[in-house]
Amino acid sequence: MAATRHTSIAPIDGGITAPTGFRSAALHCGIKAKAGALDLAVLAVDTFASMAGLFTTNLAQAAPVLVSKRHLDVTRGTGCAIVVNSGCANACTGEEGLANARRMTEEVASALGCEPEQVLVASALGCEPEQVLVASTGVIGVALPIDRVVAGIQEACSSLAHGRGSEAAQAIMTTDPFPKEHAVRVTTPRGSFSIGAMAKGSGMIEPNMATMLGFIATDAQVAPAMLQRALAESARDTFNAITVDGECSTNDSLFAMASGNSGVVIDEELYPALLDGLLSVSRPLALGIVRGGEGATKVIAVSVYDANTVDEARQVARTIANSPLVKTAVHGADPNWGRIVAAAGRAGVRFDMQRVTVRIGGILLFENGLPHDESAARAAEILKRDTVDIEISLGTGNASATIWGCDLSAEYVRINGEYRT
Amino acid sequence: MAATRHTSIAPIDGGITAPTGFRSAALHCGIKAKAGALDLAVLAVDTFASMAGLFTTNLAQAAPVLVSKRHLDVTRGTGCAIVVNSGCANACTGEEGLANARRMTEEVASALGCEPEQVLVASALGCEPEQVLVASTGVIGVALPIDRVVAGIQEACSSLAHGRGSEAAQAIMTTDPFPKEHAVRVTTPRGSFSIGAMAKGSGMIEPNMATMLGFIATDAQVAPAMLQRALAESARDTFNAITVDGECSTNDSLFAMASGNSGVVIDEELYPALLDGLLSVSRPLALGIVRGGEGATKVIAVSVYDANTVDEARQVARTIANSPLVKTAVHGADPNWGRIVAAAGRAGVRFDMQRVTVRIGGILLFENGLPHDESAARAAEILKRDTVDIEISLGTGNASATIWGCDLSAEYVRINGEYRT
Repeated sequence: MAATRHTSIAPIDGGITAPTGFRSAALHCGIKAKAGALDLAVLAVDTFASMAGLFTTNLAQAAPVLVSKRHLDVTRGTGCAIVVNSGCANACTGEEGLANARRMTEEVASALGCEPEQVLVASALGCEPEQVLVASTGVIGVALPIDRVVAGIQEACSSLAHGRGSEAAQAIMTTDPFPKEHAVRVTTPRGSFSIGAMAKGSGMIEPNMATMLGFIATDAQVAPAMLQRALAESARDTFNAITVDGECSTNDSLFAMASGNSGVVIDEELYPALLDGLLSVSRPLALGIVRGGEGATKVIAVSVYDANTVDEARQVARTIANSPLVKTAVHGADPNWGRIVAAAGRAGVRFDMQRVTVRIGGILLFENGLPHDESAARAAEILKRDTVDIEISLGTGNASATIWGCDLSAEYVRINGEYRT
Repeated sequence: MAATRHTSIAPIDGGITAPTGFRSAALHCGIKAKAGALDLAVLAVDTFASMAGLFTTNLAQAAPVLVSKRHLDVTRGTGCAIVVNSGCANACTGEEGLANARRMTEEVASALGCEPEQVLVASALGCEPEQVLVASTGVIGVALPIDRVVAGIQEACSSLAHGRGSEAAQAIMTTDPFPKEHAVRVTTPRGSFSIGAMAKGSGMIEPNMATMLGFIATDAQVAPAMLQRALAESARDTFNAITVDGECSTNDSLFAMASGNSGVVIDEELYPALLDGLLSVSRPLALGIVRGGEGATKVIAVSVYDANTVDEARQVARTIANSPLVKTAVHGADPNWGRIVAAAGRAGVRFDMQRVTVRIGGILLFENGLPHDESAARAAEILKRDTVDIEISLGTGNASATIWGCDLSAEYVRINGEYRT
């Protein structure tokens, strides 16, 4: 994390509604089969917010992704609410799916009945569906039960409350083993503001592709372009630096909302404070996604040092973190430096293998092209822990990067190999 | 396979020594712990051969790979023998490893005592170690027991015989579930020649990275450059079109030798016959490697059609074949077209998802952005077979490619997750 002089960051209670100016509601509308299982959440800004979004790079993009991207574009990053459902990804659902995703935003806009005079000039749209973003997670290729969703949205919008973010964090889960939320207070020389966030990861209600959803709220006042820049920069080393199985979903979405209620205006001087705050809430959520990965029993932090560029460091780290042979070795507590060397060697990055060093849990296992097998037993002990550090120095430059992944277990195969229908 | 007019190809008995002019010997020299387990093979040409080689693209290259590349370079693709050991990869073994790999070639050259006058002018080297190639497979980071290997080479070279290729095919195995050899007779308007081959795949004596080794012999007369070209072209759609887990070993090597004993000279006119012959022996061996992949229970043939270029088709097919979610779905006989669509979408190739079709076993499951779930039950039945065809049309061009992979089972995790030491 970049050090920001005169800024301090401290964890606070709560999640997405910890900052002032945000209300939420969560309920069971009937997408999930299990009675009472929360499957719908609405997040609303008391007045108006800057909004930013990052989305899956997959060519196959779900209807809510297409709709939210368009809405951010039309409003130039302004809005008043986000609606999220779990249990159905609304992906590969054609025109009907697009219509349903739009309908969800229309219902929220209509139910919230935001008064046009509450809306800042920047928007000039009044309270339009375009000011609402939408995200979905769950089974793909299945249509939303739109009537139940609409009824749920109307009920949720009539019961929005401050301080109820934890219910929303549960409503976005599929088979995540635990809810993921985090909040911090950022104190700067010009006042303090809060950031709260929630995320869901790669557990799935039925064996389909995993989806990562993340939501961040802050009461700092941030222009949309700066919010988008800070979101992208913070995601690079958090939500975009994790991998469970190298797969990329149709629905991955990360949203940020800034209400401005704290009165702290983020300019270039305070940008580092905002960025540090975003990193502070995003990192534990990203690690929570990895720790809750399907079948995962260990978190693996792969750090590559002394690369020519950050991109090259990241590429080598990602190849190692996604290597089935490295992941199974870590699962079996096998200090198999050879698989790490081989994965690095096929990452498509040029370096001199003679200058490479490999450490597991700080223990040097490979140097000058030769193993240090006398240290293998000590490394094997460290591999029994539930977080494992793998460090590789390429010996070519000064850049570094870390990617967080998890081990590969028979449970992953069981979860994803069971017949779906 | 390209059709060659007036050429016929028929399977024949035997493997690497089916063509005339090749002898082999295989024995237990003591690298493998199990008494009597074959772990050393020598392949020798009666007189002299054109030689060609393809090697791992991994930056971490084992000593035998470095030595063989140099020898092919020095001799410009001519030679008289290949020596192979299993049980030890001689990788990440430093200067001692390089010296040991060179020593193996020296011992073969010395033991064979080829007379300089037997060597064609093209070489002009006499019988030098450079005319011998070397390959190793097994545990990495462990030194060869070089004294035992040298004694084994001397014994093997004194017992070389025609028609004993099957023993060599066993000696190169690690934990491959079955030996892989194949031979064909190619009949052309200008005479007939034979091609024999053997390979080992991704079973491992200890959980280290898998190694693919392949050896092809022919009694056609082929200039070294043409042999190299034909080997690379045939490998593109066979040995280079397979994947078990996307990993790339430090030791992968594929060698071809042409003795010329048949008297059939391969020129541009007969080049297609040579290529078809190479494809005919390589394809069953490549599929055998996949079928014998670690923990594999099914072969998956992923064919991508209507792509802009062959490279793009191959890229999409490879991404699908390496997708953990697709591999586990096939393992569980789940007709999960959504995972196939999602893997295609993250392959880094541009196409319009609305024009994509996905078929499993010929059954259309996705078209115009929408699923055909009414066909899922029929596709699930087909997925219970031990070979599964996945076909994707991208709808953008006319190019196509096929990649062969295998499913991902809990057994893969077990094999690779057991503690090594």
